[in-house]
Amino acid sequence: MVVATDKSNGRSIPATNISPNTIIELEKGDPVVFEKYWRKRGEECSIVIRGWEMMSYHGDAKNNVCWYMLPEVERSIRRLHHVVGNAVTHDRYIVVGTGATQLFQAAVFALSPSHPSKPINVLAAAPFYSEYQDEISILRSGLYQWGGDAASYKKNEPYIEVITSPNNPDGIIRGPVVKSEAKGKLIHDLAYYWPHYTPITHQADHDLMLFTFSKCTGHAGSRFGWALVKDIEVAKKMTRYVQLSSIGVSKETQTRVVKIIGVVCDGYQNFGSMESELFFEYSKHLLRERWEKLWAVIDESKVFSVAKYPKAFCNFTNESSEPSPGFIWLKCEEGVEDCESYLLEKLKVRARAGKRFGVDSKYARISMIGTDDDFNEFLRRVSNAKKE
Amino acid sequence: MVVATDKSNGRSIPATNISPNTIIELEKGDPVVFEKYWRKRGEECSIVIRGWEMMSYHGDAKNNVCWYMLPEVERSIRRLHHVVGNAVTHDRYIVVGTGATQLFQAAVFALSPSHPSKPINVLAAAPFYSEYQDEISILRSGLYQWGGDAASYKKNEPYIEVITSPNNPDGIIRGPVVKSEAKGKLIHDLAYYWPHYTPITHQADHDLMLFTFSKCTGHAGSRFGWALVKDIEVAKKMTRYVQLSSIGVSKETQTRVVKIIGVVCDGYQNFGSMESELFFEYSKHLLRERWEKLWAVIDESKVFSVAKYPKAFCNFTNESSEPSPGFIWLKCEEGVEDCESYLLEKLKVRARAGKRFGVDSKYARISMIGTDDDFNEFLRRVSNAKKE
Repeated sequence: MVVATDKSNGRSIPATNISPNTIIELEKGDPVVFEKYWRKRGEECSIVIRGWEMMSYHGDAKNNVCWYMLPEVERSIRRLHHVVGNAVTHDRYIVVGTGATQLFQAAVFALSPSHPSKPINVLAAAPFYSEYQDEISILRSGLYQWGGDAASYKKNEPYIEVITSPNNPDGIIRGPVVKSEAKGKLIHDLAYYWPHYTPITHQADHDLMLFTFSKCTGHAGSRFGWALVKDIEVAKKMTRYVQLSSIGVSKETQTRVVKIIGVVCDGYQNFGSMESELFFEYSKHLLRERWEKLWAVIDESKVFSVAKYPKAFCNFTNESSEPSPGFIWLKCEEGVEDCESYLLEKLKVRARAGKRFGVDSKYARISMIGTDDDFNEFLRRVSNAKKE
Repeated sequence: MVVATDKSNGRSIPATNISPNTIIELEKGDPVVFEKYWRKRGEECSIVIRGWEMMSYHGDAKNNVCWYMLPEVERSIRRLHHVVGNAVTHDRYIVVGTGATQLFQAAVFALSPSHPSKPINVLAAAPFYSEYQDEISILRSGLYQWGGDAASYKKNEPYIEVITSPNNPDGIIRGPVVKSEAKGKLIHDLAYYWPHYTPITHQADHDLMLFTFSKCTGHAGSRFGWALVKDIEVAKKMTRYVQLSSIGVSKETQTRVVKIIGVVCDGYQNFGSMESELFFEYSKHLLRERWEKLWAVIDESKVFSVAKYPKAFCNFTNESSEPSPGFIWLKCEEGVEDCESYLLEKLKVRARAGKRFGVDSKYARISMIGTDDDFNEFLRRVSNAKKE
């Protein structure tokens, strides 16, 4: 048991029960930091499902696009975007999936030509989300293929560009980068475009936007994502993909999504909520606190650095602030060539290697949304690393 | 409102509220017939999930194969097969998926060579489940392709054969049929190998067996299936497919699976349960009743026929009985060439056409597991059809 308290830049890092030899798992982005908020809210967020409820494959007989979606799910999603102001839902079709992971693949399928002479290239600017490449490549589809870094795409051929904004791994706000004369289709992956991670500077208004429950409210175990889609034919093709992939989306999950989003929105729309009780304010505070602790350690570090983020005005919180991304995009300073190996061998911290994101091994990604203990122990170890 | 009661073979068909011009939807196999049982069981089958529960992607840190599965899900599945005696679980790995649909694709991926010079053929004997072909073909995979009717496969090349037993659409018990000198791998889709549909004559003991919650307990809205897998490498590859496809399976769904399977098994293992309270007995009774009514109508019909099933001894119920399949595999008699069109145009019944199952259009599939009203109205219309 570790009882010592490290000090960096005048701030103390709380003691944890993690032994110095235990590997800390920060490789995935498991959003368990938000559990604290939901515990505070107590039983009002509980769902009850009776044995005979929701046994059918169908969700809404009247929905001629996403037939497996419950009508109250659609209303909840529209309400949430209305409350937050982060995306246009007017004149958009909603398609839900088993996480944004399934919907990303549905989107790529829907935007690919049906009978191509060769597979269309799917691109993303490096550093890009580490799983896109494997998701695209796993079945060696004849419809699409992984085309690599969008910034270096030079072919005069149609393409699909994925724009992750804020970006995973580095939290940067992004736009499309391909400069080809050929026609490109865009997928906007806006998983992190929520007020706890980044200032909401505008209502996103793209043809195809993806969101996920996992990173919005922290319910990753539910496996739920949604797409806002302008073109009905694209929405129908995405629905067909989800139908053939899994015949829709769990109704138990959909029930929980309705409850949780309802509680979030009620907080903002019911007069008299205290700011500390509001989901995005509470969560932003949690993440900001972590980022401040991190900066204190990183600013002193001779081993690691992290790029600074510019401030921006958030239309949701009505204040100017820095982003507080869900991941730390760590760079090793001179003398350390392989950041992931260094972290694992010297600090016993499991990170995701820069190479997985299409860049060099001086970088590694660390989760910022895990447990307090893991985060504090990580800080302590980074803080000690500078003293070597 | 229809109030008349038809009589066939001395049995009456209950009146329904369905107007004669309303189309009856019996094209899908939505298993809502089982709702009745779960309503009878009342609140003991309810689940409650609190806001902060199961937020993580992970299910079981100790499971080095299916890492997103809750340990109690694995125990429930093993217990259910132990109670029913329909499949060997000893020395098997369990992989769970978002319905058997996702797991079927995971299985095909896992059994396909990783770097083939050309795609491996996936085969099933006609009539085969109508969705296999589209599920296999949708992405034009370079790893596998749809090879059509297993009975006519003549190539001397490796293949994957899917054996659906009892078969969907026709309820027949099946074994592999390919007679090739090449090496074949088998997937056994045992979605309907449960005592309410068919006598349990033996413990299935194959390399890769698929089951689904939808057709076992009737909870299709939950999107849950499982695979029993002999080879750990196949199980790991299937898990990797589910990971890349949807990062696991809804934890809300998994929670419900544990509750529902628990109630089913408790009924059999707790001393003093009444037979009418036991899930498989109750459901078998429901289906048998429907089949008896159907036979009464079909035996008199000059338009339709259905093949008879042989009796067999069921080790689970300890009695000999006929199967009561989840679908009616209807054949039109002479003079009607397109069974699906006839049903839709003359009887206003939506069925799935024989061609979708790889056979000719004299056949169509009708759901046997829909609502009472739809079933009775279907019977009435078939019964009237003979009088034309």
